Amino acid sequence: MRTRRQILDAAGEVFAGIGYEKATVSDVLERSGVTKGALYFHFSSKEDIARALLAEQTPSEDLVTPQRYRLQEVVDGVIALAGRLRDDARARGCFRLCLEHGPDGKYGRDWFLERVAFNEGLLVRARERGELAAHVAVRETAEFLVSAFIGLQLMSQAVDGETDLDMEGRVGLLLRQVMPHIAVPAVCAELDFGPGRDGDASDRDKDTPDRDGAAPVPPGRGPGAPGR
Amino acid sequence: MRTRRQILDAAGEVFAGIGYEKATVSDVLERSGVTKGALYFHFSSKEDIARALLAEQTPSEDLVTPQRYRLQEVVDGVIALAGRLRDDARARGCFRLCLEHGPDGKYGRDWFLERVAFNEGLLVRARERGELAAHVAVRETAEFLVSAFIGLQLMSQAVDGETDLDMEGRVGLLLRQVMPHIAVPAVCAELDFGPGRDGDASDRDKDTPDRDGAAPVPPGRGPGAPGR
Repeated sequence: MRTRRQILDAAGEVFAGIGYEKATVSDVLERSGVTKGALYFHFSSKEDIARALLAEQTPSEDLVTPQRYRLQEVVDGVIALAGRLRDDARARGCFRLCLEHGPDGKYGRDWFLERVAFNEGLLVRARERGELAAHVAVRETAEFLVSAFIGLQLMSQAVDGETDLDMEGRVGLLLRQVMPHIAVPAVCAELDFGPGRDGDASDRDKDTPDRDGAAPVPPGRGPGAPGR
Repeated sequence: MRTRRQILDAAGEVFAGIGYEKATVSDVLERSGVTKGALYFHFSSKEDIARALLAEQTPSEDLVTPQRYRLQEVVDGVIALAGRLRDDARARGCFRLCLEHGPDGKYGRDWFLERVAFNEGLLVRARERGELAAHVAVRETAEFLVSAFIGLQLMSQAVDGETDLDMEGRVGLLLRQVMPHIAVPAVCAELDFGPGRDGDASDRDKDTPDRDGAAPVPPGRGPGAPGR
């Protein structure tokens, strides 16, 4: 599988750099260092490579581990995705691929909607547990979070350059604006917006398998309470 | 100039529909209904058409008329741009063109930065006039507004489809989240987030040529005060 990984890594880099439309199989081949025969053993076309790249993207829920508050999981998902795009050329290639096809609905629509659905699910559970302010429209807010994230990543690439993304700062501003608008104050005060919450979820709250088993948030709970 | 307009209208529609990279001069030619000779009289290449399309985009400041508060002008700019993208295929074509080249910095960077600079200028003047909360970082906020807008437009195209953009609702949510975060309460209470503020600025405050001549906001000013 090493050859396959080499090809997909190269494809991510090529797509991220010059875009999917402009990229050719030859560009991917050249960058990967594998033989033409090896590439065509694994993939039949540029489209085929793109599909494989998309299929291997980590689902949103795997970027996040269970937390005391569902809204913390929303926050963690945003931060983890930013970290993934910073560290992983394949993820950046996928992102660009999705953007180019966004308005056509070919790849982008699914990418967008998977993330919207993930956030929507968390927000529904946040509402059940009393974490969410009464006026919040769950679907609209889930779409807003994903939209703003996409725009921030684009801006970061355009302004900071592809290798020097300041998504930590940009995403921090997004979260600091959105969360006070949607969270009840007692929950908002306890949310952790990082830095440090960058997708390495392995050392946090690993021993909390039952995401929704905990009691709802007591109203008026003050800041600084320990995690479950 | 009618032929030139026909070509640019067609180019806007083609770029918006299938993207700049995929589009060919033949696609534009076919859609425009002009002769090949006429097209090549006006434009030498697809790049040439793209440059003309970009050069004819209305600058941000022309989408907004002077208002009592600079933050209202920020709001109006966001709403006007959404209206422009809804009503004008050329603007949508430009937007897609900029997105495709965003990470390369070829077209997108300028489009992004023009809008960031426009918002930054308004926010600087909003600060001078006491409209802005003390913690607000002007440049970051200007970038955030443009970023979020871009993401919302993309989401709208992906989810609503190109002909049924619900940018009014999406942009309303953006403004209702950002403005309470950045405006002092007395100003925030007086901001008008539409609907109706959709870029037809001609019937609003036309007789206020001196944008910065008015006195700063009196602290603690209540809602409902008349415009200047």
